[in-house]
Amino acid sequence: MSSKKIRIAICGYGNLGKGAEKAVANNKDMELVGIFTRRNPAEIAEQTSTKVISIDDVSEYVDDVDVIIMAGGLATDLPQQVPEFAKLFSTVDSFDTHKKIPEYLVAVDKQARKNGNISIISVGRDPGLFSMNRLYMESILFGTKAYSVNRLYMESFLFGTKAHSFWGEGVSQGHSDAIRRISGVKDARQDTIPMLEAMERVRKGENPDLSDGEKHRRICYVVAEEGADKGRIREEIIHMPNYFEPYDMTVYYIEEEELKTDYSGLPHGGFVLCTGETSPGVKQRMKFELDLDSNPEFTGAVLVAYARAAYRMKKEGQTGARTVFDVAPILLHPDAREEAIRKLL
Amino acid sequence: MSSKKIRIAICGYGNLGKGAEKAVANNKDMELVGIFTRRNPAEIAEQTSTKVISIDDVSEYVDDVDVIIMAGGLATDLPQQVPEFAKLFSTVDSFDTHKKIPEYLVAVDKQARKNGNISIISVGRDPGLFSMNRLYMESILFGTKAYSVNRLYMESFLFGTKAHSFWGEGVSQGHSDAIRRISGVKDARQDTIPMLEAMERVRKGENPDLSDGEKHRRICYVVAEEGADKGRIREEIIHMPNYFEPYDMTVYYIEEEELKTDYSGLPHGGFVLCTGETSPGVKQRMKFELDLDSNPEFTGAVLVAYARAAYRMKKEGQTGARTVFDVAPILLHPDAREEAIRKLL
Repeated sequence: MSSKKIRIAICGYGNLGKGAEKAVANNKDMELVGIFTRRNPAEIAEQTSTKVISIDDVSEYVDDVDVIIMAGGLATDLPQQVPEFAKLFSTVDSFDTHKKIPEYLVAVDKQARKNGNISIISVGRDPGLFSMNRLYMESILFGTKAYSVNRLYMESFLFGTKAHSFWGEGVSQGHSDAIRRISGVKDARQDTIPMLEAMERVRKGENPDLSDGEKHRRICYVVAEEGADKGRIREEIIHMPNYFEPYDMTVYYIEEEELKTDYSGLPHGGFVLCTGETSPGVKQRMKFELDLDSNPEFTGAVLVAYARAAYRMKKEGQTGARTVFDVAPILLHPDAREEAIRKLL
Repeated sequence: MSSKKIRIAICGYGNLGKGAEKAVANNKDMELVGIFTRRNPAEIAEQTSTKVISIDDVSEYVDDVDVIIMAGGLATDLPQQVPEFAKLFSTVDSFDTHKKIPEYLVAVDKQARKNGNISIISVGRDPGLFSMNRLYMESILFGTKAYSVNRLYMESFLFGTKAHSFWGEGVSQGHSDAIRRISGVKDARQDTIPMLEAMERVRKGENPDLSDGEKHRRICYVVAEEGADKGRIREEIIHMPNYFEPYDMTVYYIEEEELKTDYSGLPHGGFVLCTGETSPGVKQRMKFELDLDSNPEFTGAVLVAYARAAYRMKKEGQTGARTVFDVAPILLHPDAREEAIRKLL
């Protein structure tokens, strides 16, 4: 390892940007050059000791930043921003609309390749670590199906230490964000609840075909602006393609104060599970699981590890867009390969 | 993907070789060319419909085999065989003496590189998938420690469906093998039992420093040959460096018949767990877990997935020895990259 630190910048300073800021501070081989924002930098400067820079000045920083962590709105900002930023910097992002990933990958790849950068897309929990575990599982247990399930009262039978209530579990940031963009919505929070019956079938090794809507239902807590048409907002939510249309939906209207106090945490979790047979009757189960006090801080930590990989891949002369599937695990770890093999293999 | 199948051979036909044979049959993009054995091929041919070939004739098959799965004795055969085989073929193996991996890697790398082959070493459960998860966890949750623990009555609180008894859980094939090589030992089985107290400390987020011996104790069931010196055998077992010396050991002598009937299954499992903080008080837990009806069949399935990766890496012109840390996840999956991204990311 060279002693030179990897120079990171963050674009966007919402929950995810703040999580990434903390993660950079936890990694000794990195330094945070600055935070880019669309807002007035002075407004953000009050909240952080990191240098805050207007997004309009981003091109002045091409020689000062190795990798930029794209922490803008997932559904709407990233598809616009990342192909633009990939012209100037190596990037990592957590774009999370599963169905649009292939076209997004192509758009980002084109710019990153043309301009000699590496862009690692759709990094985080899911898509991200969960996707990678689906891939590992289905590669090893051929013909099995890997199921991803969000938090299922996990603590009660798994870690045994925390007694969470049902409400407030499984916040989806991308989906909450999508609701907030509907006209007349002041704030929102979306919780994802797994279907117990579907889970039970997976555990029994039935390997059922399950649609998205059979695995989870979704609950939305919406703070409406004064005078907004609540009926119309509800319709817009439940018919939003990809995001909500496939699901059994419940929409609750609550007061802003209530959202801030009773629903303010951002815990999340879940697991990827599969049951496969290597010969008739011989069942093999694999499971990957996350139990998170803070989803944005965790996603920030994952983005930062992949920022290290992007830096190393570019240094090797690679260019173009990558996913978690394409990145060898060793590229994420701060240690040199020989050291990591000695300590961890 | 080309329609040409990947041509696999297996060297060794014990539990692991048989597991690998089943795994190849489960993968439509592979075919099994043959099984190499040191024994009399006729003896093995009775047990399988695969072609059985004397190990002395291996060099005649250089043009017929893409990757050879090395399924000989882990502790003694592999360090001798794999550097030799790497001169002729790409290889995958499950060498499992953690402390000797660095020197083994160098020895295999030298021959593979010189002869234009790829050798992926120490693939399986642990070292292998567990190691990789330790690496992912420590890369993401910087400063945390990832603990690997073998089966901890998992079913009772995790899958809720099976009621295993304590005995017979957590068989270690490599360690059983090591005991069998002691003079006077007819057969043996070694079970690994996790220390509950140590686990509890990890779950609480204490991140303690735990030696191997603080995490597990080991129980050996030994069938002695008639007239063998049981006291001497016991001493040889408990003082075996790396294998048993660091552990709290219990050695039981049992009858051959008893070993075959009461202790014949090879289930295994365990998990890798870590608890890290991304900011003060914000705890994030990651866990990867296996619950296996058959350890050798599962290890065989992992070896086969990495055989696919070895085939692809060699085709790309790569040479030398690799570990699970070096292999991008996408190389394991039978699907083309675009297809896997569409389906699994």
